[in-house]
Amino acid sequence: MASRMTFAAAALAAALTLMAPAVRAADDDLVYFLTPESERLFETASETGDFYPLIARFVSETRQTFCGIASSVMVLNALEIPPPVEPQWYPSQYWSEDTIFTLPVLEKVASVQQIEGGGITLDQLEVLLETSGATVDRVFAADTDLDAFRKAAIATLQDPNAYLVVNVSRAVLGQGGVDGGGHISPIAAYNAEADRFLFLDVARYKYLPSWITAERLYAAMNTIDTTSKKTRGYVVVRK
Amino acid sequence: MASRMTFAAAALAAALTLMAPAVRAADDDLVYFLTPESERLFETASETGDFYPLIARFVSETRQTFCGIASSVMVLNALEIPPPVEPQWYPSQYWSEDTIFTLPVLEKVASVQQIEGGGITLDQLEVLLETSGATVDRVFAADTDLDAFRKAAIATLQDPNAYLVVNVSRAVLGQGGVDGGGHISPIAAYNAEADRFLFLDVARYKYLPSWITAERLYAAMNTIDTTSKKTRGYVVVRK
Repeated sequence: MASRMTFAAAALAAALTLMAPAVRAADDDLVYFLTPESERLFETASETGDFYPLIARFVSETRQTFCGIASSVMVLNALEIPPPVEPQWYPSQYWSEDTIFTLPVLEKVASVQQIEGGGITLDQLEVLLETSGATVDRVFAADTDLDAFRKAAIATLQDPNAYLVVNVSRAVLGQGGVDGGGHISPIAAYNAEADRFLFLDVARYKYLPSWITAERLYAAMNTIDTTSKKTRGYVVVRK
Repeated sequence: MASRMTFAAAALAAALTLMAPAVRAADDDLVYFLTPESERLFETASETGDFYPLIARFVSETRQTFCGIASSVMVLNALEIPPPVEPQWYPSQYWSEDTIFTLPVLEKVASVQQIEGGGITLDQLEVLLETSGATVDRVFAADTDLDAFRKAAIATLQDPNAYLVVNVSRAVLGQGGVDGGGHISPIAAYNAEADRFLFLDVARYKYLPSWITAERLYAAMNTIDTTSKKTRGYVVVRK
């Protein structure tokens, strides 16, 4: 879908992004769930339709590198795409971070061991979801801009049959540390007045969901993934 | 806490409860999450304070018999009680359906294999939570009544430092089938007008959360657990 950017352009974008935190205003800080400010943002949110279907399937990544796996499980369950058979749930079925590893996924995406070692890229996220039965629009941050991203994100939240998953840099979110690298999680709501998106962080052992300004969210996507050498970005996932 | 009822009284209560479904009005049916009626109940709910802390830690039981384990994990995380060390989350920590099985839990509650085979009783749920660092009030349905339960449940939902977990009969909820026996899940909200509680069903592979009338919820607790030979009931869990 999105055309591939040149490495020089990506490197420049990354360099500019890395400069951003130095001039970042304090009111750009993340607002965490379960705070009075988060309650206010939720109550006055313009888009909350995707919140309930996603939160009813909220999961924690089962490995520190399974953010893309956990996000996919949430979205596949929310879309009610038929899951592979997991004998212990019979006659019910449900996507899990175990059953998502079907033979086609292992062949087209990566082995469990490879993903345990380094997670997945945005390209691999697209293939994982499509191989699991979803339809995916994948967009690299370098091939869009803040306004176009915001517009696409809001349209996705307004569509009951589409879910948004973003691939970001933890460092640009201000959440660097032991894993300052890439991260993947679904977006569940939007507050127009504050221009903030609600990020359902699947690393629940570490962070509660957080409200992130569109500007910072886009900046966090517009960074280079050291594995793919391309910028991060987002996917819109449909049945 | 609650005194032990006689077997005769329990059997009588169970017999009366089993008669209830025949006269049950249709408007006593469960209202499932992600329906327009559920949205309306949530928007007009009188108590939603416990919803957000619990839903942010919503998990699926990892075995068909792990409802008590999954419910405990949710409540222990919501109360932010310090969890055992799980090396892969270091330096963060989080309760999980694996790490909850500490040596004291295995010694005082049951082995993993025993719980896989038959789940846990209300008494075992109390011991599991207390052994994990919580303070627990455990009440058998036979030792209370509908009005007292409703009052205690609302007070728990109003207290930001207390969570309610109920132990019910699936059959009385109208959810009989492959596991028509007992079930355990947390309660997250209350709608006074409809007199319904929101039950965050941890068997997410099978049921979405549901709004249950206080009357049916109490009737579902006021049934005999074939393992304990006592009625089911509820626990109020604090830090």
